[in-house]
Amino acid sequence: MKKISENKAFGGTQEVYSHFSKSNDCEMTFGVFLPEEASNNKVPILWYLSGLTCTHENAMTKSGAQVWAAEQGIALIFPDTSPRGDKIPDDQSFDLGQGAGFYVNATNDPWSKNFNMWDYITNELPELVFNNLSLDENRQSIMGHSMGGHGALTMAFTFPKTYRSVSAFSPITNPTKSDWGIKQFTAYLGEDQVKWQDYDASLLMRKNGFPGPILIDQGSADQFWDLLRPNAISEAMIEKKQAGLYRIQEGYDHSYFFISSFMEDHISFHAEALYR
Amino acid sequence: MKKISENKAFGGTQEVYSHFSKSNDCEMTFGVFLPEEASNNKVPILWYLSGLTCTHENAMTKSGAQVWAAEQGIALIFPDTSPRGDKIPDDQSFDLGQGAGFYVNATNDPWSKNFNMWDYITNELPELVFNNLSLDENRQSIMGHSMGGHGALTMAFTFPKTYRSVSAFSPITNPTKSDWGIKQFTAYLGEDQVKWQDYDASLLMRKNGFPGPILIDQGSADQFWDLLRPNAISEAMIEKKQAGLYRIQEGYDHSYFFISSFMEDHISFHAEALYR
Repeated sequence: MKKISENKAFGGTQEVYSHFSKSNDCEMTFGVFLPEEASNNKVPILWYLSGLTCTHENAMTKSGAQVWAAEQGIALIFPDTSPRGDKIPDDQSFDLGQGAGFYVNATNDPWSKNFNMWDYITNELPELVFNNLSLDENRQSIMGHSMGGHGALTMAFTFPKTYRSVSAFSPITNPTKSDWGIKQFTAYLGEDQVKWQDYDASLLMRKNGFPGPILIDQGSADQFWDLLRPNAISEAMIEKKQAGLYRIQEGYDHSYFFISSFMEDHISFHAEALYR
Repeated sequence: MKKISENKAFGGTQEVYSHFSKSNDCEMTFGVFLPEEASNNKVPILWYLSGLTCTHENAMTKSGAQVWAAEQGIALIFPDTSPRGDKIPDDQSFDLGQGAGFYVNATNDPWSKNFNMWDYITNELPELVFNNLSLDENRQSIMGHSMGGHGALTMAFTFPKTYRSVSAFSPITNPTKSDWGIKQFTAYLGEDQVKWQDYDASLLMRKNGFPGPILIDQGSADQFWDLLRPNAISEAMIEKKQAGLYRIQEGYDHSYFFISSFMEDHISFHAEALYR
């Protein structure tokens, strides 16, 4: 992997790398914050998956996560949200194609060659960073926002031994029943809705539950409330008697101002699981 | 003034407004963070002046200032760095014209009609916000980054009764002797260098000093070190026996990662002066 930039931040370093991704058959970029402790020891990792239209950069510059990660001695990884480039398929709408990978492995053309974000995040990128950075692969947690909240929840519910804890801001929770999901799953996965079920956090919750702690924050003033379907995941958690914290935050919307307002809570929440 | 956006953040609100500026003869945009306390009482204000190429938005989304301002009950104001628009004079270089107002009142054509950021920040914008928002005009402090650090220091040293404290990240400290200054002052103010002196923080320090507390943070790995001339202000402070804190932060560069790393210190520093 090739270092694009490095800035000292909060006693550690905020770094950006690019590398060729086999899963997505293109060059991919990601950001990583390494706390000061990483210069001496392998540190725990918190994956941050971003939402629609985001690159690796949005959360890296706007979430305010580094201050708390530095305090807790935790590394943050900020992957991109899709493959990108002139040769990569795209769609003119903002919620399909580049910037909208939806954290699935596409099986339909023209997407299947490049849009394999599920494998990229759960397999390829971890191997790369564990081989190259001072990270402890036995201590991983995952979080995300919106489409990235969907990614974080589905990955945690599928690989409960990999991720000790999961949290989300304003996640897409039930894509098989939402216009943020049906359109994309039809394009990436095809008409057979059985294949969609592996990528639906509410369905996975009902089926698997999750053995670790869960924290979900949802703003009451979220402009995308109906698309996120917050009721689906909360009902699934109740039905499963899932231990977890589901919070409606009064007056907050879908923006990074909401995320940064509660980032301290989320990092502390994950730190508790990562240092147990 | 017209509200452009409002997002709940840290219990308060992050708002953006536009208004017609007489000083700059154009529509101007600014951001303001109001802590929760502003809904009941007039709150103290911390002005944040941004650097070259920035709009009102950079610090608002990247500095991480709101978390600490909310904790201290302080409002933040994020002005733009110049007039903007199709009818406003500009230059093709990034460090002159739009995005590079240098916080002066231009007296030379074609700039003099619109580039009056000194009056805008010290006079017009305060009047506007005091008339419209729950702010205590008797409790103001000022800070800035790079070109904005220059603005903050020169304004504080000129109006010591207005600003209780001043701080800066990586400020341009001696523009009359730097390529970040000579070029712009020649354009905005003309060849007569006597007129430049009112806008040079190091010269103003030697002349006036400052009765309140001063905090300056400068990264040792700053890529613009030579243009900022950090030695000029530190020598002027020593010569004036100025009470103040001048810190070289090892390994930090000129970016917002530096700013956010020490923002907690700066807001606490100003809070102490604002609540004295």
